[in-house]
Amino acid sequence: MPADGVKHVKALLFDVFGTCVDWRSGVIREAEALGRKHGLRDVDWGKFADAWRALYQPQMERVRTGQRPWVKLDILHRESLEIVLRDFGISGIGAAELDEFNRVWHRLDPWPDAVEGLARLKGKYVIAPNSNGHIALLLHMAKRAGLPWDAILGAEVARAYKPLPEEYLRNVEALDLTPPEAMMVAAHHHDLDAARACGLRAAFVARPREFGLEQAVDLLPQSAYDVVASDFIDLARQLGC
Amino acid sequence: MPADGVKHVKALLFDVFGTCVDWRSGVIREAEALGRKHGLRDVDWGKFADAWRALYQPQMERVRTGQRPWVKLDILHRESLEIVLRDFGISGIGAAELDEFNRVWHRLDPWPDAVEGLARLKGKYVIAPNSNGHIALLLHMAKRAGLPWDAILGAEVARAYKPLPEEYLRNVEALDLTPPEAMMVAAHHHDLDAARACGLRAAFVARPREFGLEQAVDLLPQSAYDVVASDFIDLARQLGC
Repeated sequence: MPADGVKHVKALLFDVFGTCVDWRSGVIREAEALGRKHGLRDVDWGKFADAWRALYQPQMERVRTGQRPWVKLDILHRESLEIVLRDFGISGIGAAELDEFNRVWHRLDPWPDAVEGLARLKGKYVIAPNSNGHIALLLHMAKRAGLPWDAILGAEVARAYKPLPEEYLRNVEALDLTPPEAMMVAAHHHDLDAARACGLRAAFVARPREFGLEQAVDLLPQSAYDVVASDFIDLARQLGC
Repeated sequence: MPADGVKHVKALLFDVFGTCVDWRSGVIREAEALGRKHGLRDVDWGKFADAWRALYQPQMERVRTGQRPWVKLDILHRESLEIVLRDFGISGIGAAELDEFNRVWHRLDPWPDAVEGLARLKGKYVIAPNSNGHIALLLHMAKRAGLPWDAILGAEVARAYKPLPEEYLRNVEALDLTPPEAMMVAAHHHDLDAARACGLRAAFVARPREFGLEQAVDLLPQSAYDVVASDFIDLARQLGC
């Protein structure tokens, strides 16, 4: 049976990149293919993927702090891609091909337990992504991967990026719920801590290979989350689904 | 095979009240139950439902014209309900019970062809509601009725009510599409005409019993829509799904 803290929960809001899908393997796979096509040798595509992802927070921070207006994540990814390509000394790939490659973030594979776990959870809860990805990205990903969302929520609905409070609060409000009626599910402490500060419940799901074999962060729960699960099937089991 | 005009369509946006679900029968059913509970005799609940629905456009018009800020449809329905109750001479029902009755709009049944038709269309297209209903309303309706939406779009995403152009254009933009890549599906000429004025494609699906047995409007297509279908299964067939 679920713990007391979650008995009033009606909706589960999911972080997506890293929590639902394996962004690193997906980016490496398509980057390798791009590299082969363009005869790029001696590129460590794992490092390339990590470098691209490392620009994610700094790029969003410029939006969060109001240095630029809200834009869809595709725009931020595309600008970061130019920086990473330059840093890796890669040139000569056409803009249209890079636009297409940039949408690799729409084509990421779910972790093996994700679709089954979500399908079980959906029987009892409203399930929706609460990602910094925009609606079209999350929709394309869900159609391709079979993620059975009830609705597509997230940063675009709030026009604010996590971990700003208004992002969580606006999405909870879109569901006609109060914060304790929603539980954020994520593999990242900073996301869960921000959600909890807004009054949401929090479930930590470990994804110990998100950053590859040498991952050193987010391996264990660091505070008293409402639920700690090893994967989405374990989460469903613990929630009585 | 689909007509030329629709071959670039990637997403179908659906009007909901009247097009996907039978609002009139649903409202009558719950109003009758409420009437029995409170011993209300001699009320024509069909007329009551029609009177409630008749306030829909005038209430939204105050938002569209900027006389009041955007609010969720539940708020407008609730205010209209007070007016209709007064006009019908009904009093003495508690606020909490009326709040619950007001959410009858979340609990409407789909037309018999809707779920099967949408499931078929979903295999080829992105399908989403583009309704003046808010996200939670559409989500509750979909969970209850089994409407298999890919995403929940509509007035709340745009913070504008149809038929304002920004409502259609913002929802198309949320899908990363251009207007001709989206087709509005509706049983109402005014909705389709507004969508077409924004560049969207248009499919008319006749719902000749939406307003009851004496319906006199929206019975036939009145202009050259891209598709004219008798129901959602016919729509799926015509679109090659």
